[in-house]
Amino acid sequence: MSSITLIGTGNMARAIGTLAVAGGNTVEVMGRDQSKADALAEVLGGGTTTGKWGAVPAGDIVITAVLYAGVVPVVAEYGDALAGKVIVDISNPFNATFDGLAHSEPTSIAQEVAKIAPAGASVVKAFNTIFRSVLEQGRPDVFFAGDNPQAKADVAAFIESLGLRPLDVGGLKMAHWLEGAGVLTVGLAGNGIGHGNFAMGVSEFTD
Amino acid sequence: MSSITLIGTGNMARAIGTLAVAGGNTVEVMGRDQSKADALAEVLGGGTTTGKWGAVPAGDIVITAVLYAGVVPVVAEYGDALAGKVIVDISNPFNATFDGLAHSEPTSIAQEVAKIAPAGASVVKAFNTIFRSVLEQGRPDVFFAGDNPQAKADVAAFIESLGLRPLDVGGLKMAHWLEGAGVLTVGLAGNGIGHGNFAMGVSEFTD
Repeated sequence: MSSITLIGTGNMARAIGTLAVAGGNTVEVMGRDQSKADALAEVLGGGTTTGKWGAVPAGDIVITAVLYAGVVPVVAEYGDALAGKVIVDISNPFNATFDGLAHSEPTSIAQEVAKIAPAGASVVKAFNTIFRSVLEQGRPDVFFAGDNPQAKADVAAFIESLGLRPLDVGGLKMAHWLEGAGVLTVGLAGNGIGHGNFAMGVSEFTD
Repeated sequence: MSSITLIGTGNMARAIGTLAVAGGNTVEVMGRDQSKADALAEVLGGGTTTGKWGAVPAGDIVITAVLYAGVVPVVAEYGDALAGKVIVDISNPFNATFDGLAHSEPTSIAQEVAKIAPAGASVVKAFNTIFRSVLEQGRPDVFFAGDNPQAKADVAAFIESLGLRPLDVGGLKMAHWLEGAGVLTVGLAGNGIGHGNFAMGVSEFTD
């Protein structure tokens, strides 16, 4: 089992935290608003603790469950408190019309986080292709990308503890295309599927 | 049923052509090498015809089944012969290391085709996320994107005739992210899946 810290107290923190507790993981919540962190910890139960905003997280895996524009600033604010941690970026940097990314360069929030992460920290992109509602009711595949094999193995083990299938798409530069898959997912919801109770995944075929 | 023309005589032309004939569609093959077009038409059977390279295709739907670098030149070469046609770009413009796209701009082969397509032609991106081997043995989802609703409806009906599920991801600019999904698919084959007998698709969940 894994030891994780959720930075953020919103819907995705609650959805991932709920699965994490059910999977037997040790969970800590950190929020800029301590009262919201306390409230989420109580909702999650299972011995979930809270940490002080900006302090060294108790978890080995730190999930930045904040809106995309806040991810890089939050990692910068935490600074050396994240040394040695596996930082998991779950964000979707959609543009204003939800049909492209907010950055025009072929980068990703995860890659931008990696540029400023402290020594020994590793960054993994994961979970961004999954609508929160699906995490609450389905068993979607979880795509992930990263450059550090041990960090990726740690995140894969965590994903498996949630009862979900981890799917490694390659190095951290693939985070750009995972963010693009987030754009496709929104496109599917508005065009090809017509609702939000789905997720992109992989179907295997045999001869 | 649909009337299609395959421009190209390679593996993808054979795979799509085989399914198209099985689905009761009218199929024409065009190849720069007429003998290869004749040979593929014979393999496909089912009344498959051949057309002269560069002539007006018999099919209403024209699938450019050539390597990505050839798609725009071929459409340019055909020119007005493609007026009024639905042009389906199935290409994957991978970079040399297969972990990104050959174009650094946020465009796609499909969008570049649209810029030079003749009057009344519509461009749809489809099939690019599917390995040829999977088309031959599985029933993968087929993502597609385009700007013209009628052209998209025509392509969706053709995809359904193949026994596959068409999934509309939105406008033609989404072709860029479909090409990115092609990159993810290669990444999955090399990392998270370990073989090529799979395809990205959609899983639906219910409460």
